[in-house]
Amino acid sequence: MLRTHTCGELRISDVNKQTTLSGWVQRLRDKGSVLWIDLRDRYGITQLIFEEGKTEAALLASARSLGREYVIQVEGTVVERLSKNDKIATGDIEVKVTKLNILNAAKLPPFTIEDDTDGGDELRMKYRYLDLRRNPVRESLQLRHKMAQQTRAYLDSQNFIEVETPVLIKSTPEGARDFVVPSRIHHGEFYALPQSPQTFKQLLMVSGFDRYYQIVKCFRDEDLRADRQPEFTQIDCEMAFITQEDILNTFEGLIRHLFKNVKGIDIPSVPRMKYDEAMRLYGSDKPDTRFEMKFVEITELTKGKNFPVFESAELVVGISAKGCSEYTRKQIDELTEFVKRPQIGAKGLVYVQYRTDGSIKSSVDKFYSQDDLKVWAERFNAQPGDLILLLAGEKNATRKQLNELRLLMGERLGLRDKNKFSALWVLDFPLLEWNEETKRYHAMHHPFTSPKPEDIHLLDTKPGEVRANAYDMVINGTEVGGGSIRIHDRPTQSMMFTHLGFTEEEAKKQFGFLMEAFEYGAPPHGGIAFGFDRLCSIFGGADSIRDFIAFPKNNAGRDVMIDSPSTISQEQLNELALLIKK
Amino acid sequence: MLRTHTCGELRISDVNKQTTLSGWVQRLRDKGSVLWIDLRDRYGITQLIFEEGKTEAALLASARSLGREYVIQVEGTVVERLSKNDKIATGDIEVKVTKLNILNAAKLPPFTIEDDTDGGDELRMKYRYLDLRRNPVRESLQLRHKMAQQTRAYLDSQNFIEVETPVLIKSTPEGARDFVVPSRIHHGEFYALPQSPQTFKQLLMVSGFDRYYQIVKCFRDEDLRADRQPEFTQIDCEMAFITQEDILNTFEGLIRHLFKNVKGIDIPSVPRMKYDEAMRLYGSDKPDTRFEMKFVEITELTKGKNFPVFESAELVVGISAKGCSEYTRKQIDELTEFVKRPQIGAKGLVYVQYRTDGSIKSSVDKFYSQDDLKVWAERFNAQPGDLILLLAGEKNATRKQLNELRLLMGERLGLRDKNKFSALWVLDFPLLEWNEETKRYHAMHHPFTSPKPEDIHLLDTKPGEVRANAYDMVINGTEVGGGSIRIHDRPTQSMMFTHLGFTEEEAKKQFGFLMEAFEYGAPPHGGIAFGFDRLCSIFGGADSIRDFIAFPKNNAGRDVMIDSPSTISQEQLNELALLIKK
Repeated sequence: MLRTHTCGELRISDVNKQTTLSGWVQRLRDKGSVLWIDLRDRYGITQLIFEEGKTEAALLASARSLGREYVIQVEGTVVERLSKNDKIATGDIEVKVTKLNILNAAKLPPFTIEDDTDGGDELRMKYRYLDLRRNPVRESLQLRHKMAQQTRAYLDSQNFIEVETPVLIKSTPEGARDFVVPSRIHHGEFYALPQSPQTFKQLLMVSGFDRYYQIVKCFRDEDLRADRQPEFTQIDCEMAFITQEDILNTFEGLIRHLFKNVKGIDIPSVPRMKYDEAMRLYGSDKPDTRFEMKFVEITELTKGKNFPVFESAELVVGISAKGCSEYTRKQIDELTEFVKRPQIGAKGLVYVQYRTDGSIKSSVDKFYSQDDLKVWAERFNAQPGDLILLLAGEKNATRKQLNELRLLMGERLGLRDKNKFSALWVLDFPLLEWNEETKRYHAMHHPFTSPKPEDIHLLDTKPGEVRANAYDMVINGTEVGGGSIRIHDRPTQSMMFTHLGFTEEEAKKQFGFLMEAFEYGAPPHGGIAFGFDRLCSIFGGADSIRDFIAFPKNNAGRDVMIDSPSTISQEQLNELALLIKK
Repeated sequence: MLRTHTCGELRISDVNKQTTLSGWVQRLRDKGSVLWIDLRDRYGITQLIFEEGKTEAALLASARSLGREYVIQVEGTVVERLSKNDKIATGDIEVKVTKLNILNAAKLPPFTIEDDTDGGDELRMKYRYLDLRRNPVRESLQLRHKMAQQTRAYLDSQNFIEVETPVLIKSTPEGARDFVVPSRIHHGEFYALPQSPQTFKQLLMVSGFDRYYQIVKCFRDEDLRADRQPEFTQIDCEMAFITQEDILNTFEGLIRHLFKNVKGIDIPSVPRMKYDEAMRLYGSDKPDTRFEMKFVEITELTKGKNFPVFESAELVVGISAKGCSEYTRKQIDELTEFVKRPQIGAKGLVYVQYRTDGSIKSSVDKFYSQDDLKVWAERFNAQPGDLILLLAGEKNATRKQLNELRLLMGERLGLRDKNKFSALWVLDFPLLEWNEETKRYHAMHHPFTSPKPEDIHLLDTKPGEVRANAYDMVINGTEVGGGSIRIHDRPTQSMMFTHLGFTEEEAKKQFGFLMEAFEYGAPPHGGIAFGFDRLCSIFGGADSIRDFIAFPKNNAGRDVMIDSPSTISQEQLNELALLIKK
């Protein structure tokens, strides 16, 4: 080893020891008579000291020649510091250097290697290997490592077997777009990269593996939105001979284990909410339950008073924001502008200020009396000092709009604390959802999700009302995982494919092996997959997943550090029998 | 749960308990008055009993209707068996069934689900999900899981951080062929799948991650040989601020930990052998050291006796096979045929039988006296009863031929016991190897391997003699891992690229980011990668890696179960701007 200790290791009890350290020059402070260098490695920072008169002149000169991020090896004696630093673990000591070996020089980095760097996003992506030297980024990846360790520890303890499924699989038209890989041996044919190991994990259940998991890379060639990556990691799990209840308990166990062992937090048992209720109370299938501010519907209270907007509305629904009754006109206008943004699409916003003096002021005073508004306020359980914000219109659209407003108000009121965690199971998702573009129903989860037996009779008449044995786990308003009890028999699976608009031939071509497998003794089974990148970012209290991925791609799907994707040689194209359309 | 116990769990102490079991019908034995069913799951087999007169008639009829591999759930009482089976853990008890629920029927499988199946390779691959039900295959994958667990446990204990590196990277012309992935957003550009995370793990060292590991899928689009897979898994590791000695100690530690914790075997500390010595003593850089039978060179002893073959030979070298002196003419002819096979390419084989009566008989008696042959035998340390087998010719070719013969003799003498394990470090590999096809030197390991400093002066004059700081771990004659101390400075790396025939432009285009990274403070570093599939197969005592991979591809790179690769839609091709050359 080019060191006897790491830079995070020496303590006051090590004083007088000889030590060899290796690391990076974090900073130099040259006071003329004394030169200090902060030496950094993954484990910490240790201060080195060189003194005019005491340190050999050549050594001192060599130390003075060092620049930031030089890689050096030093030998010396551990001494007690005169002025201690209680911010770092090695702050009681410093190392009096007797030998300095420059292992590698360094050009000045294009941005500072500090917690708050001066580097912009693009620059940090291009020099990702330097960005990774910064504490916050390294700590994010260390958190990820710990999350993976603890995930495996828990699942191992529950008798799950880790099985690697293939990466070179087959393209399926359902769902998002696949990345494909041309075959050199079979010209004109392609492998596809998996969007998830879904069919393989189901086959493992047919094989009797009973409990499977994998922390696995998956791929989606989607038009990238902010904070989406073309390759991402899932904690992928499947269990046989279980009911939905078993899955919920097992994976509630996982999440609680992770909070306990990674964050040291005991979270309470995870509450459950039906999809319908989540939509009704939060306008979202992934409500942020760190704060209440539940929706209150007052449609019937608003009728018959000649306010045309409410009169014609399918739904009048609102939230009550604690302590916001004294919002200024300008503040309320801002909220109105917010909900009228095209991404949100509300026509307007009605407010009811339940002022601290007990009076009520509203934007619909012309139509509703103080008594009317009092009744509303009671329905909201509002108190003097609260501000009721109301939206109206078509049910689903209005709920979605109000969800955005609720989240904004939660943010403004400081109710979305990154260090507070609230997990929730959302259950009983619809099986199918209507797609306006293709004018047909698509599987909301995926085509292998089982319908609730009691709803199957609705498949032909009211397909949109059929509920699935499907569940999502939501933490702090983000879906971190989802799954379902699967179909495990061929007739039901065939019926589902028919309802999803597959011809028998298409279904056979794409999933024939799975349907055939169901005929050789498939057990009841179900599973779940967690988005690992996102889960890590939530545990890390971050909005973006980017710093929880060592080498992420930018929003154009490009790795700007290695400059990929890139052209390949004509020889490679020829071997693959491919031509590029100009 | 659809069970209260697994099929491997019930014991004599559970007698009289009510139990619910779920699993597969392994076999039925119908004796008329009594019907037994072996119920199987991942955890074991439990015997079910149905008795004429005691079991309800409808239940008995239903049980009689079951076929092999039906999935059933039963309720019943645990009773002591009359005739116990000490071959299975549940052999003391059986379950008297009171309720039977057929969870799923099963068609008759195309091959038997038994340890020794009647299914051929292709059939088992097509129905891999059924093959995976067989004990030996499931146990191989369970072994793999345990290997992964223990690998992580050891590396975690050594402060390694698991970091995921990207799968969508950049194509590089050096080495084997890349699989490529066309970009839909950037037409005409491609990602490549990694042959290894080599450059990324080196960048992580530049980033200060200090110790990295990953159990990671890698990809090579090579013409498939038997037992090669286009996707394979590596234990990939890298360390900073280390010397070769530290790497050897750390990963000897890993292998010993695995033997101890997976197999319960204490292997001795791993011996080290230089590449030159391995070639001289075994004719191979991956010698099987489970047995001795080292090469003995007698070139100079054979000269001057007018035997033309030896007279003109650069090398005369042989092995002594214990107790084989009485081989018949036919047996020796077989060995001669073996070495003359075109794949081996020897011209002939000379034998010296040191007979049990002390006399010596040889195929070159005409040229060499008994005294001459005695001297040879002494050199071989041969005893009466031994058979000396000699090959002659050009040094390197002859050694390779004799290696094959040595392995054959080891096999014949039962010296290659799959339950015996012999690990070895092979050190000081050549840096470069001559490629007859391209007429230039290629990196033997990869272009980032550092030359031994004392050999750098030979790079221009005798490039083939430059040794590298490179090492392989060999177990039982199979290379299971290899690595090197890397170049960590730009000038040396540039020089290497030049010697490997890269133009400056090519080097910059392919590895510019790495060379640039070396200018920002790269620490000395090195690493190793183990072939995980192969390592598992050796621990499992198997010749093939196939059953240590859940869903392998066949020798044409095809997954015959899902039928991949396959054609994709014209729409997909259009989106990727690709045409297929007819």
